This record gives sequence, C-alpha cells and structure tokens, in this order.
Amino acid sequence: MKTIGIGLVGSGFMGRCHANAYSSVAGLFDVPLKPKLKMLAEANPELAKEAARSLQFERFTADWTELVNDPEVELVDITAPNHLHHPIALAAIAKGKPVYCEKPLACTLEEAKTMRDASESAGVATLVGYNYLQNPMIQTAREIVQSGEIGELFSFRGVHAEDFMADAQAPYTNRLDAEQGGGALYDIGSHIISLARFLVGPLSEVMGMQSTVIPERPEATNSKQMKTVKVDDQTHFLARFENGCSGTLEASWVAWGRKMHLAFELNGSKGSLVFNQERFNELRLYEANQSPGREGFKTLHSGPDHGTYSKFCPAPGHQLGFNELKIIEVTQILEALGGSGSSWPDFREACEIQKTLEAVRISAAESRWFSPDEMETT
Amino acid sequence: MKTIGIGLVGSGFMGRCHANAYSSVAGLFDVPLKPKLKMLAEANPELAKEAARSLQFERFTADWTELVNDPEVELVDITAPNHLHHPIALAAIAKGKPVYCEKPLACTLEEAKTMRDASESAGVATLVGYNYLQNPMIQTAREIVQSGEIGELFSFRGVHAEDFMADAQAPYTNRLDAEQGGGALYDIGSHIISLARFLVGPLSEVMGMQSTVIPERPEATNSKQMKTVKVDDQTHFLARFENGCSGTLEASWVAWGRKMHLAFELNGSKGSLVFNQERFNELRLYEANQSPGREGFKTLHSGPDHGTYSKFCPAPGHQLGFNELKIIEVTQILEALGGSGSSWPDFREACEIQKTLEAVRISAAESRWFSPDEMETT
Amino acid sequence: MKTIGIGLVGSGFMGRCHANAYSSVAGLFDVPLKPKLKMLAEANPELAKEAARSLQFERFTADWTELVNDPEVELVDITAPNHLHHPIALAAIAKGKPVYCEKPLACTLEEAKTMRDASESAGVATLVGYNYLQNPMIQTAREIVQSGEIGELFSFRGVHAEDFMADAQAPYTNRLDAEQGGGALYDIGSHIISLARFLVGPLSEVMGMQSTVIPERPEATNSKQMKTVKVDDQTHFLARFENGCSGTLEASWVAWGRKMHLAFELNGSKGSLVFNQERFNELRLYEANQSPGREGFKTLHSGPDHGTYSKFCPAPGHQLGFNELKIIEVTQILEALGGSGSSWPDFREACEIQKTLEAVRISAAESRWFSPDEMETT
Amino acid sequence: MKTIGIGLVGSGFMGRCHANAYSSVAGLFDVPLKPKLKMLAEANPELAKEAARSLQFERFTADWTELVNDPEVELVDITAPNHLHHPIALAAIAKGKPVYCEKPLACTLEEAKTMRDASESAGVATLVGYNYLQNPMIQTAREIVQSGEIGELFSFRGVHAEDFMADAQAPYTNRLDAEQGGGALYDIGSHIISLARFLVGPLSEVMGMQSTVIPERPEATNSKQMKTVKVDDQTHFLARFENGCSGTLEASWVAWGRKMHLAFELNGSKGSLVFNQERFNELRLYEANQSPGREGFKTLHSGPDHGTYSKFCPAPGHQLGFNELKIIEVTQILEALGGSGSSWPDFREACEIQKTLEAVRISAAESRWFSPDEMETT
Repeated sequence: MKTIGIGLVGSGFMGRCHANAYSSVAGLFDVPLKPKLKMLAEANPELAKEAARSLQFERFTADWTELVNDPEVELVDITAPNHLHHPIALAAIAKGKPVYCEKPLACTLEEAKTMRDASESAGVATLVGYNYLQNPMIQTAREIVQSGEIGELFSFRGVHAEDFMADAQAPYTNRLDAEQGGGALYDIGSHIISLARFLVGPLSEVMGMQSTVIPERPEATNSKQMKTVKVDDQTHFLARFENGCSGTLEASWVAWGRKMHLAFELNGSKGSLVFNQERFNELRLYEANQSPGREGFKTLHSGPDHGTYSKFCPAPGHQLGFNELKIIEVTQILEALGGSGSSWPDFREACEIQKTLEAVRISAAESRWFSPDEMETT
Repeated sequence: MKTIGIGLVGSGFMGRCHANAYSSVAGLFDVPLKPKLKMLAEANPELAKEAARSLQFERFTADWTELVNDPEVELVDITAPNHLHHPIALAAIAKGKPVYCEKPLACTLEEAKTMRDASESAGVATLVGYNYLQNPMIQTAREIVQSGEIGELFSFRGVHAEDFMADAQAPYTNRLDAEQGGGALYDIGSHIISLARFLVGPLSEVMGMQSTVIPERPEATNSKQMKTVKVDDQTHFLARFENGCSGTLEASWVAWGRKMHLAFELNGSKGSLVFNQERFNELRLYEANQSPGREGFKTLHSGPDHGTYSKFCPAPGHQLGFNELKIIEVTQILEALGGSGSSWPDFREACEIQKTLEAVRISAAESRWFSPDEMETT
Repeated sequence: MKTIGIGLVGSGFMGRCHANAYSSVAGLFDVPLKPKLKMLAEANPELAKEAARSLQFERFTADWTELVNDPEVELVDITAPNHLHHPIALAAIAKGKPVYCEKPLACTLEEAKTMRDASESAGVATLVGYNYLQNPMIQTAREIVQSGEIGELFSFRGVHAEDFMADAQAPYTNRLDAEQGGGALYDIGSHIISLARFLVGPLSEVMGMQSTVIPERPEATNSKQMKTVKVDDQTHFLARFENGCSGTLEASWVAWGRKMHLAFELNGSKGSLVFNQERFNELRLYEANQSPGREGFKTLHSGPDHGTYSKFCPAPGHQLGFNELKIIEVTQILEALGGSGSSWPDFREACEIQKTLEAVRISAAESRWFSPDEMETT
Repeated sequence: MKTIGIGLVGSGFMGRCHANAYSSVAGLFDVPLKPKLKMLAEANPELAKEAARSLQFERFTADWTELVNDPEVELVDITAPNHLHHPIALAAIAKGKPVYCEKPLACTLEEAKTMRDASESAGVATLVGYNYLQNPMIQTAREIVQSGEIGELFSFRGVHAEDFMADAQAPYTNRLDAEQGGGALYDIGSHIISLARFLVGPLSEVMGMQSTVIPERPEATNSKQMKTVKVDDQTHFLARFENGCSGTLEASWVAWGRKMHLAFELNGSKGSLVFNQERFNELRLYEANQSPGREGFKTLHSGPDHGTYSKFCPAPGHQLGFNELKIIEVTQILEALGGSGSSWPDFREACEIQKTLEAVRISAAESRWFSPDEMETT
C-alpha cells in the first residue's frame, strides 16, 4: 500500500485529533494512501519530544521550517496558533507540498487570499478543518437540499453558541486577540458560516451587530489584573443568500448551557430541516404534503444509509463521535492526493468564509449592508 | 356577586375563545365581577343570531354601534376584523366604557396612538389580547429575569414561525392586505415582540429585512385567478434593547412543520432560558455554577408553583391549554374593573408593540437602523 | 335548548373540574342537552354552601341522599371519596338516574360488580372518569391501531409514574388505606390499565409484583407519629393480551421527577407509537417501510385533524389542557342522554379495569399468573 | 514503550471495531502496553488475508489454533461466531494467555462456567465486550448511584429494543439458532442485564415471559423457503434485586423505529436517572429537594468531567462515538496486563450475566420466579 509522510505542526486539541485520525483512517476507509507519522513540530524541543512520543510520530522538531523542508514530509498539517497558519502554509506551498490547515485559514483576509492564490498557482491540494461539514447527517442535509426534497429555500436560521467564555472570570486568552483573528465571530461563527454556505450557498449581503458583554477579563486564571477585551463576545447578523434565501446567523461564546450548539433551521417551499450539533447523529426533517393528521417532523438517526457512516458501523443508531468527523475529513486530502477525489473545503472555500466573516465585521462597524464580494477587491 | 355585562363584537376563533373564557372564569378564579354575556354583534343578523345562540349570549345585533350604546353592555370586547378595532374602540371609549381588544390594536400606528390617547384621556381600562404573555411559564420566565436569577441579559433570540401560509396554493386572505395590517410581521411577529418586551424590555433600535417568498396566491381556494401578494411572508430583524441586550427576531408563516413555534432563547450573565409555545407548559432553565459534571438545562414542567396554574389544577404536570390562557387574560380586565388589579398589556403597551413593528418595517424599507421611539413623533 | 339538571357530590380537585366542564361544554360542543348546575353536596353545610357559591350551583346540601332524590337533579355526578361511590351510585340508579362517577369505580371489586349489574338492570347510562382516554391524541392512537396502520400488535410497555409520594415525609392519607382502594396500583395504575385496554384490548393474564418502599409515614404533615403503610408504592406486572400482544405495565407514585408520566410504547408489525401524558398534545409515530435514509419517528402535534380538537381551536399546535379532557368527557354522557351517542368508559368497562387491578394484586400475592376473567366468578 | 502482541479471531463488525481500537488507543490513553497487531484468524485463507491487509495485521491464518499458539500473540481476542468462544478461550487459557472475548461469553451456561473456572484457575486476565458499560455517562450514572446521590434504589425499568428483525422478511440467521445462544434475550437482552447489574447490582429473582411474534422467516434474503423460528423475538421480565430494588426488563429486536434503544429509568429515594443509548452522550438526572418552581430533570451532556471523556476531547458537548467505547474497553485489558488496573467485566461477571439470562429463560418456560443463583448449582 502506498504511503504518505505526515508532518504535523502543533499538538494541542486539534493536533492530537489529527494524529488520531491518521492512525485510524486506513483501518476504516479504503484510502489510496496510508499516512505515516513522520515528524511533529512544537514550540520547543521538550514539548515536541513529548508530543511525538505520545502521538506516535517518528521524529520531532522545534523548528517548523525543518518540518516543511523534510523530504519525508509529504503533507504539511498545520494545527499551530492562528498567526502561524500563513507563514507555514506559504513555506509548504513553496516546496510544492499539499497543506491541511486548521480553521480559521488566517488572521487576516489579506493573508488568506495570499494563501489561496499561492496554493492555486502552485497547484497543490489544500484542505481546511471545518470538520462539522464532514458529518454524515450534514452530508445528508445537503443531499436533501440539492435534490430538491425541501424545494426552494426560504429561510435559514443558524447559530453557533457555546458557553466557554460565559464566566466573567474566564481569563484572557489569545482567542481574544483581535490581531490573531479572535472574537466569537471569527472563532466559532466561522463554523456556522461554513455550514450556511455548504447547505444554502454563498451569502450575497450581510448586516451585522457585534457586542462585547464582558468588557474586561483577568489576565490569567485567578489574576486580579484585568485586561480590556476588544473583540466580540457575540455577533448577530442578517443575511441574504445569492439564491434568494434569507436569514439570521449568530455566534456567541457566552451562551450559558450551550456546549456545542452549532444549530440551524432551514425552511423551503417543500419542507424543513432542523439540526443541532449537540445531537449530531440526528437530523429532523419535515416534508410538506404528509397525510392529514399524520404530519410531523421526523427524527432521523444516523445509520449506514447516511454518507460515510457505514465505514464506521454497519448498524444504525450507534453514533459517530466528534473525533470521527476528523477521520472523515482526513480521507478528503488522502483521496485528493491519491487521485481518487478532491478535498473540500479547500483554501478557496475557506477564503470565501473569511470574506464573509470580514463583511459581517465591517457591516457591523459601519451599520450598513455589506457584500462579501466587495472584500475580494478591497 | 357583582356582575359585569359583556358585549362581544365578532364570533370567529377569537370570539368563541373569549366567550368560553367568560363562561369559565368565575368557576376558577375569585374574580370581583362575574361576566354576564349580554350582547353579541356580528356582520349580519343571521350570523349574529346563530352565534348568540351557540355562544350563549342573551341578545344579538348586526350593528356594533347598538352594542356599544347598550346600557347593559359594560365591557366592550372587540374580536372583529382588524380595520374595525379603531372605530369600535373609540366609540366605546366615548361612552366611557372599558375595552378589551384583540391584537393587533389597529391597522395603522396612527390609529393605535389615537386609541391609546383616547383611552387614557377617558381613564377607561383597556386590555389587548397578547394571550401568550398570560402563560404561567412565561410569568415564571419573567420572574426569573426580574429577580436576577439569570443575571444581566446578553442575548435574545426570538421566533414566531408557523406554516399556515407555506403552501403556495393557500389562498389570498385579508391577512395579506397591507391596508389591514397584514403580513407575517404584523400578524404573528407582534407576538414575539410582545414577548421580547415582556421579558427583556423595550427595544431601542431595530434593523429589519422582509421577504415575500410566494409572490402571488390564488384569489380563493382552488381559484386559478392569482393575486399579487404585497406583504411579507417572513421578516427577520436585529434588535438592540434599552438595557444593553441584543438579538435577532423573526416572523414567518411559511416555515413548514412549525405549527405554533413562538420560541425564544435568552442568555444572561448567570444563566439561560429556553422556551417554545409548542410545549408551552415547559420552560428550560440553565443556571451557571452548577456542580462539575452535574451541569445541564433543567426542564421545568408547569405546576402549582408557577403563576396562576394552581387555579386550574392542584397537581403539577397536568398542563394548561391555549384556551385557558384566554381565561387568565380575562381575569386581568375583570380585576382592573373590580378594583383589585390592573390590566396588562393595555393600549399603551400594545401601541409600543405597534411602534416596534412599524420601526422594523421602515428599517427594512430604508435599510437602516431605526428606533421605535422615532415613531412616536412621526 | 333542552337542559339537564346536574347534582354534584364533592367539590375537591375533581368536583371543581367537573363543574368547570359543565360551564364550558355548551359553548364548545353542539351537545343535545345543556347542563344546569342544580345542587352540590358536600360533607357539611358550610363547605357545601361555599362550594356551591364558588362553583356556581343553585342549591347545596350536606346530605347526598337529598341530592339523589331531588327531582331537579337528572344526572348524579360523584366525585366524593372512593368509599361513597358505591352507596351513592346505587341510590341514584334506584331512582333511575344516570350516573357519572370518578375513578376508581369502587373500593372493592364486589361493589364494582354490584354497581355495574344494577346500572345495567336499570338501563341507566353511566360514565367513569378515565379522562385520559378522551385526549384527541389517544383517540388518534386508537384510530391508528384499529385501522391496522401499525399492523398486528407485538408489545406494549405502559407506565404511570408520578412523584407525589416520593418524599418519605409525605404524610399518610386515605390514598394509603387499603380499605378505600388505596395504593399506587389502584390509584394511578388503573389509568395505565384503562389505556392498555383502550388501545390493545383485554388483558388475558397478568403476573404482578408489588412493593412498599416507604414502610411508614407521618400520620399528618410534620407529625412525629408514624403510621405503617400497608399498600404498594409501586407495582410492576407482566401482561398477556387476548390478541396475542404482551408487555409490561407499571405504576409508581415514588418516581422522583415524574409529574404525570402516563406513558406507553406500542410496537406492531408495521410500526410503533410512543406517548407521554406530560406532553399529551403530541404522539410519536414510526411507520415501517419509509425510504432508506429518511426513516424516523414522527412527532405529531395535536390539531384539527385529531378527534375533537377542532371544537376547541381551529389551528394546530395550540394545545389542549387537562381540564379540557374533562369537557370532552362530559360530552360523552350528555350525548348518551340526549340520544346522539353512547358514553364510554361506562360501569361495565370500569368493572373490567377493576377486575384487572384485582388480578394483578392476587397474582403478586400468590406469585402466579392470574386471569382477570377468573375475577368474575370469584 | 512496552508492547503487547494481539491475535484477533474474526473480522466482522466487532473484529474491525477491535482492530480500530488497538490502532487508536495509544494515541489517546497513557496505556502501559502498546498493542501490536500480530495475527488475524478468519474462516478461510482468502478472507484472512484480505482482513489482515484491511485491518493492518502483520500475519494471518485460517486456523485459530495457530493463532493461539503463536508465541508473538500475547493477548487472544475473540470476535468469532458465538459457538467458537468456548474452544478458543479454553485453548488460550491453557497456554496461559489472557482473553478478550465478545459477548455473549458462550452459547450455554455450562460452557461459560467452564471458561470462567479455567480462567480463574489459570490466573489469566479476561475481559468481555459489554462495551456500553464503558460509556463515560454510564460511569457517571454508576458514580451517582454509588455515592448515594439518588439515595436508596426503588425501581429500575430497563429496555433493549432494536428493529433489525422487525421485518417479517428479514431472513433467518444464526442469531436465531437456539444452539448458538440465539434469540433477542441472549443477543441484546444481555446488554440491559449487564447494565442493570452495573448500576443496581445482582438480580436475586426473575420472572420471564417470552414470545416469538414472527414464527417463520425466509431461509435467506428473498428465499421463498421458510424456516421455523424457535427463539424469542421479545422477552419481558420482572426482576427483584438483592438490594431490594425491583423492576421490569425487556429485550426486543422487533420494535419498529428503535435503532439502539438501550434505555433505562432508575428511581431512588433522592432522585432519578434516565438514559437512552440512542443519545448516549446525555444523561438525565432529577434531584429531590430542588427549589419550588425550579424543579426538573437536568440533561447532562458528556464532557471532561465525566469519566474518560477528557482523553478524547478537552471540550464538553463534542460527543463520543460507539467505536470509541471500544477504545475505552481496550484500555481495561491493557491496564490489567500492564499492572495498572483490573479489567472489567471479566469472565466471572459475564458468567453472572449468563446465569441471569438462563434464569429468565427457565422462569418463562416454567411460569415461576427463578433465582440466577440456582443456576450455579444446576
């Protein structure tokens, strides 16, 4: 079996998650390439060594350029802090290597565009970690939309709400740095935008409203030194889609009780879909024209008839876990590189998401409707 | 026991509902006045006679002025078509009689203001039928908010979605007449605004977006003659509240599968509330600072500890029905007239709701943020 | 309109509920007879007077025999303590008067049989207050079963669980008197048996297990004097039905968190039904042979297509309340007496339920399968 | 890092699942031994070769004795058909090798006892694949029970319902062979018994009822040749537990709509727990003595505060999948063999489950209460 050498930058939550996906993927999917965990890069040698051991990489380095240049590294996987996405990706692309990068693609739209253009000029495959799109039930939702089962799309209501910053004592972190693409909109709102685009299509115009509800936070846990927060804790926005659908979207990391509430409702001329990532193995479907007295939303449970579920389990109702969405994601890049498919969402799509985020931010700042398309030429 | 003579204009869904509430209220509540069903007015004598019989009124008329002027009629109850609210209410107020009127208060804001001002000048009690506010679980939600149990309010997401116009073959009705205060925003969006104001407080600014997704409808059931629709099928808007909370609101009558989805989520600094009118005997509450590993939304079921529930049933979990919310509503005006309370929402509050609706409409038309307060002086 | 004079014995939870139903029924249903609240009987004159005033009866008495004999009382309605059902019903039947009696029909099966036989000999109409059967969604469930929509019945799991006795400090009441038909099985288990019979049919054999989990309780609230409990706090039993279906049933009043959990699941050869009285305006339906990948339980919300719902409201999703089930119940006896229908469940059906209860009790005591039919001849 | 050589017999659903768990476990947990996939045995050489390739084993064989005897195989993992569990396990134990075996332990209780006794005499570690017990939310449920959070246990209602045999055209398989431990009770009822024992404790007495609702099935898919079914499609039983708790349990593979409904409700003197494997990342908890008007079941979502969840993900609400329960299961045997823990459930526990199953079967056949303890000496 052909193999591909993996170089992973970063070993946090996402780094571990990617590493695990590489270990598992070949036992579940018939991928054309089997990943070999070649090299892990971390911020310093100690951390790199320990992470390489724990995640089962052959070698390690504290210098990501070494990783990018290593001849055995055939795929550069970036789970480093956001501000490093841009330099690492460009370096990898310059070496003609494909890149698999965590979201958000970059800290600024300018960087994101550069990365997109470089990858396309170089003709390297790319993949960005909007993993929720890989969920078989989301794939099913898309199939339902695209086949016309719920007809013409009327309204989309999308939310990504969590509560990890709801406590005013939750300390300042780099997620709060505007320079690093911080704030609830960029951090988690990007997920609901990726979902909106996946299901409904491009947003033609947005009108945003942002608020910082906890204006200052401790510099560190239990610190009495406070630091001013300059990013949004929550963003709400109106959206018009190119296909005529319209709706509201929302991102919040201060929504007490919501742990992973990436949720939507989509109404069309022939039915509706309702979904919530907190129960991501379920999808609720309402079909117009049911028999009188027997009308209702159906709750579909994930099973072998839904997307790639059958690769994990032959029986319905057993459920996939979050980490398994990452395994599906990894198949995207392996298939693209092995010639049996294309990887999605790629840098181009991630750049579109980022243009939308930026349009929301500007529309909120300027209190006017704004088109993501305007961001291309800005 | 003291009584009060009721004159009811209209005998449709709401008229029947009010009549039933009058029949039941004295057996359930210790009201200071017992309603006597004196006179019913309808569009023509035949209809009036039949409705009086069926709803058990003593007399009937096809002329609402006769009803307003009848000395035995001590409370004028208006469930007539929207365009009649204004003349009937003004006539009743001119006679110094209290008025109980279905929502919306009037077809235009101008009329609504006139009605409000007239009632206040005359010093008559008024009540408007935003019945969902009378739900013991909504009263409990308000109590939770006002006591500070969920802290400072951050975000409100409110929706009123139904599907009774989702079928493109659903014919044109007067709910679609712009002149009669038609459209999804006015017809049902008014409910979610009433709820937002009740729980969160006045909206200081709104930014709307309206769409007509079914541009023409049959003039009548099965008719091939089509009529152009000039009102919104769905309206989405952003809102800022006076107290700093912000959020999104939405009204749609084309949301397949939603039968009575008047729903909200409210996030505060110390917790969250989630509610859906389709399960209106339940309220979901999340309280910050639960024990680790034992954190979750609680589902409260209505019971004797919630508002006026105990008037209906001494045991929890038995549930109130929609018609019973109207019975609670009726107690408001009886208590106001009997001197043991005040009725709410009154014409002033209904006028505030209407100013908000109008602000949404204008903000959508002009693509700019708009304040309901501006509507007072317009 | 023809009227019928009502004599009501008892003014507790159920008495109030019946009185309210009489006041409301004629405004909602086209009943052949309009109830007139003639006389109320209570345990003493003060209580009787106050209840008559509050519930709007014309006259009152502290002697139920006076009520039974009163010529204006044409329907005897019994909501008195259980041990009085038998003598009052027999007295009414002896006067040739129809009887509407709360459940359970009697404290002993012997009494129940006597009441049944007397009513049938006298040819008087009877009705027993198993009100949950009157729910339009339960009527729909029955319609689904009887039309064969879910095919041949395989398994029924029924539960009636509440928590009003779960606190060990909840004091002793007459619900705990074995002599008065006390215990969880008789008190609430009778409801799940009535539902099982309504949906599935007669139980041919039962095998019970009873337990008293709180062996003694305070004689009264806050009393330190304890009294031994001789009845069951919970009963579980296996059942075989005449039609070949089998299942488990359960009654408990010590199930913390359950407020009105009268719930069932019914599996057949072509589908399944799931219901819970805590959301009694909903019914979950699974139909075999749905399209692959689109299979799921549907959640039906009550609406005008379900039974008598439309009498209360023309729009779906608005919901009926518990008290409204009693209004539907009252139509049963009014229609029977007015010649336009028959009342159900009558004394015969209530006696069958009681035979089943008794069979469960004996099977538990004797640790063997027992047939309700054996109870007829015992 | 120390390693352990794995020999896997079988490559079906469970075989794949185990193989995947071995590949993933060392990247997630700090296990004392890292699994090496040494040899795979299958029914014939072709199948064995292909499975070894796909599941990434070094070598393969069509003779399981070769695997058992191979010096590099240090742990024998049995996912072969049920009738092979006994001979393979005994052979492995005879070689002094630890055994990890899928459920059910054996086709007959006699075999199961032999396996248990042999393993204990030989002092080898054993583990049986009742994987649902490994769920962090079930571990949390057990912690809640054992800490006394819900007090003394009153009632347990357990169900394992699926619908994979609900279609009368579903063909005969070896799950229907009585000789191979077939039938719904043995096949899936064993799971709910394992859960009951884990949470509540040993069952002291059972009283069963079994039924075959589809008496004959096609010999194969689309075959017209029918074969008589001799095992149960559904089993219901009453249970008394040693600690005084009582309840009902049920197994069905003909429950339309239920995909993985391994569900329970447990009521205690201070609270209740409700769980359903179809949403296995949730646990519902009701605690007695909540504030009036704020009482309700809480829905806990799995997160880092629950058992081993944090090994998979640092953030709550992301969810584990079914296959990940197998990874947790594998840590049990690795830790036992590495000296840092003990594996559970072992052969002794699996034998107790089997005694309970057998007691249910006999009690149903003989229509009498039966104790699992009696099975030891039979």
